[in-house]
Amino acid sequence: MSIETSSSTTQLWESHWATAVRSISSSAIRELLKITEQPGVISFAGGLPSPSCFPAEELALAAERVLAREAGRVLQYGPTEGFPPLREFLASLMAGRGLPIAAEQVIITSGSQQGLDMIGKLLIDPGDSVLVENPTYIGALQALRPYRPSFVTLPMDEQGLRIEGLEQALGDLTAAGKRPKFLYTVANFQNPTGVTLAAERRHALLELAERYGLPVVEDDPYGELRYSGDAPPLLAALDIERWGEPRQVVYLSTFSKLLAPALRVGWAVGPSALLHRMVQVKQGLDLQTSSLNQAIAFEACRDGLLARQIPRICQTYHERRDTMLAELEQAMPTGTRWTRPDGGMFLWVTLPEALNASQLLAHALERQVAFVPGADFHANGGGLNTLRLNFSHPTPEQIQVGIRRLAEVIAANA
Amino acid sequence: MSIETSSSTTQLWESHWATAVRSISSSAIRELLKITEQPGVISFAGGLPSPSCFPAEELALAAERVLAREAGRVLQYGPTEGFPPLREFLASLMAGRGLPIAAEQVIITSGSQQGLDMIGKLLIDPGDSVLVENPTYIGALQALRPYRPSFVTLPMDEQGLRIEGLEQALGDLTAAGKRPKFLYTVANFQNPTGVTLAAERRHALLELAERYGLPVVEDDPYGELRYSGDAPPLLAALDIERWGEPRQVVYLSTFSKLLAPALRVGWAVGPSALLHRMVQVKQGLDLQTSSLNQAIAFEACRDGLLARQIPRICQTYHERRDTMLAELEQAMPTGTRWTRPDGGMFLWVTLPEALNASQLLAHALERQVAFVPGADFHANGGGLNTLRLNFSHPTPEQIQVGIRRLAEVIAANA
Repeated sequence: MSIETSSSTTQLWESHWATAVRSISSSAIRELLKITEQPGVISFAGGLPSPSCFPAEELALAAERVLAREAGRVLQYGPTEGFPPLREFLASLMAGRGLPIAAEQVIITSGSQQGLDMIGKLLIDPGDSVLVENPTYIGALQALRPYRPSFVTLPMDEQGLRIEGLEQALGDLTAAGKRPKFLYTVANFQNPTGVTLAAERRHALLELAERYGLPVVEDDPYGELRYSGDAPPLLAALDIERWGEPRQVVYLSTFSKLLAPALRVGWAVGPSALLHRMVQVKQGLDLQTSSLNQAIAFEACRDGLLARQIPRICQTYHERRDTMLAELEQAMPTGTRWTRPDGGMFLWVTLPEALNASQLLAHALERQVAFVPGADFHANGGGLNTLRLNFSHPTPEQIQVGIRRLAEVIAANA
Repeated sequence: MSIETSSSTTQLWESHWATAVRSISSSAIRELLKITEQPGVISFAGGLPSPSCFPAEELALAAERVLAREAGRVLQYGPTEGFPPLREFLASLMAGRGLPIAAEQVIITSGSQQGLDMIGKLLIDPGDSVLVENPTYIGALQALRPYRPSFVTLPMDEQGLRIEGLEQALGDLTAAGKRPKFLYTVANFQNPTGVTLAAERRHALLELAERYGLPVVEDDPYGELRYSGDAPPLLAALDIERWGEPRQVVYLSTFSKLLAPALRVGWAVGPSALLHRMVQVKQGLDLQTSSLNQAIAFEACRDGLLARQIPRICQTYHERRDTMLAELEQAMPTGTRWTRPDGGMFLWVTLPEALNASQLLAHALERQVAFVPGADFHANGGGLNTLRLNFSHPTPEQIQVGIRRLAEVIAANA
């Protein structure tokens, strides 16, 4: 904000802040994006889908149809749970992902980001333990921090969350008389690392969750975007398979990466005991997600748009991932490591120990290339020599040029 | 939800609830709407705009244009603060309401409901005092309750909030060593009572707010919908007039009643010190409000849609208000009183002391007429003999029939 408030005004408001304000800060990424959006900068910083994949014509047609056919409904207030035809559609979509559920078992959220806020509100009292991967999605930390949890970070490797680390953490917490409120995981093509939790670890994770009575939040914005390898079952699918209903796992997903982020339409699948409370919370948050956007998403999807979109997106991002991996292989100085994701939008670079990614960013920006330093993805600090690269938004040509520049910056500072 | 969770699943989640869950419940109105939406029922219960006033064609044209012209922008992630052209437009709209502000001094929210949640998150610690009108907007109570404030209710009359009641409350709180976090007020055509705060009381309110260092949240969804009488200045306008910048007052408004609720586009105007924090909070809540809907709202408004919409809505609701007032005059048994709003969407009925509006509702539903009992609008109880009537959604014919039925039900139970 360029307009400054006078100091007495600032003082008035600051003297009224709630304690939670101490835990609220702006996402480094969203602030960084303002810099990196300048023309000429090749940005691997954002988490943006490629606009070349937006189904603009299909969405325009869907908007035209729903407004011509049922304006009185799609412009009006609607149920907090979501637009009924979209919930029906999502139930069938979820069946295709291995979650055989009824329409009543899915609710609409304003992006899956809102699901995280609602879960924080329902489950976290100040000081409660919450288990997160290390590193983890920065937006989850932002959503949950105002509820002032104590984050317990779990180690990862190329196969995702390490089960012995989870077991150790659960044992330690139990020994200390603490009961963690939930585990938050992005099991598929994780943001920020791009790694996917191995199938056998998924079974082991759910066994531990059952043994310790641990709720699991499975955030799955990228699961459909796979370019290589076989898809392991969703945690939510294994949960339903085991219990015949959603029990330990609440599953979050979104249209942001499949249709368009601007729709702000996500969804949550989980036990009714939880969904019922999420709906109550949502009334206070925003009453409902845009009926218009829900109707547009439904109208576009009922014509089979996703079956056309997903291969189109995968083809585009597959090429970009391959380009980035090839270029990293060719250009990066020794001592620098990176992940090789089977899908999603990101990969993760680990620099030599002595390098600081935040300091490196200043040099990179001079060379007109941007990334996100990894530190902020670590709930309790660390990761100073790590960084995240996005490969969905830059073109293959930009990726080639940008990675070479980045490699030179790293080599010059190593 | 019709699908029940098994008791062990319910137990798992309930054993993890945060303390805030005790303060979360479903809005009586939203639950009631499910009943009253059945065909044949004449409903004065909802708070719905008339679909006859939705500018469906204009919005369809705006959607078509923005998707044809700049799909890559309006379908992509955008700034949390809001779509820049819409913020520019709102700055000029606000100037017309007496708030000469810059585009940086307005941020977009997902309906004005989200503004309330953000303010609760930023300002309320458990036990903090928050001043509210009695009765007040139920959605504000829902948004704020999870932050566990102690509500201090302020008496009202036909001229709005009573200033001596506010002064008394501020004096009592100060004497008890307590500092209220803010006053929440719907000064224009209040939901639920329909009354408007008199001009001289607005000055007095701001003087008290200054003396006690009290932030004021002015929620103004209905201010443009005036059918009689003169418009007093907005509290936010008086605030800016006094200080040259927004200082004590944060102002919330929305397109829900002027264009369509389904857009979920609202806005907040206030001191930068507060807006800056609201933007940080919003990142965790939903990242941003739908870029598409913001672009549609802007595209429709830049053509001067509001100047056509507002008279059209006012004409429709004016007739409905007059019809309801005339019918009440004619049909209601003595001992029943009601407000005579100059605008907005609601009026407020006070039944004879002995009558209970919730019990009356059961009888009314038998006669196929619905309203909202007033009790839930009272933060700390009371108001059992009150009820809210909406006149924006039912047609004049439905109003005539419905009010007669309601009068008969009241007479039969008095």
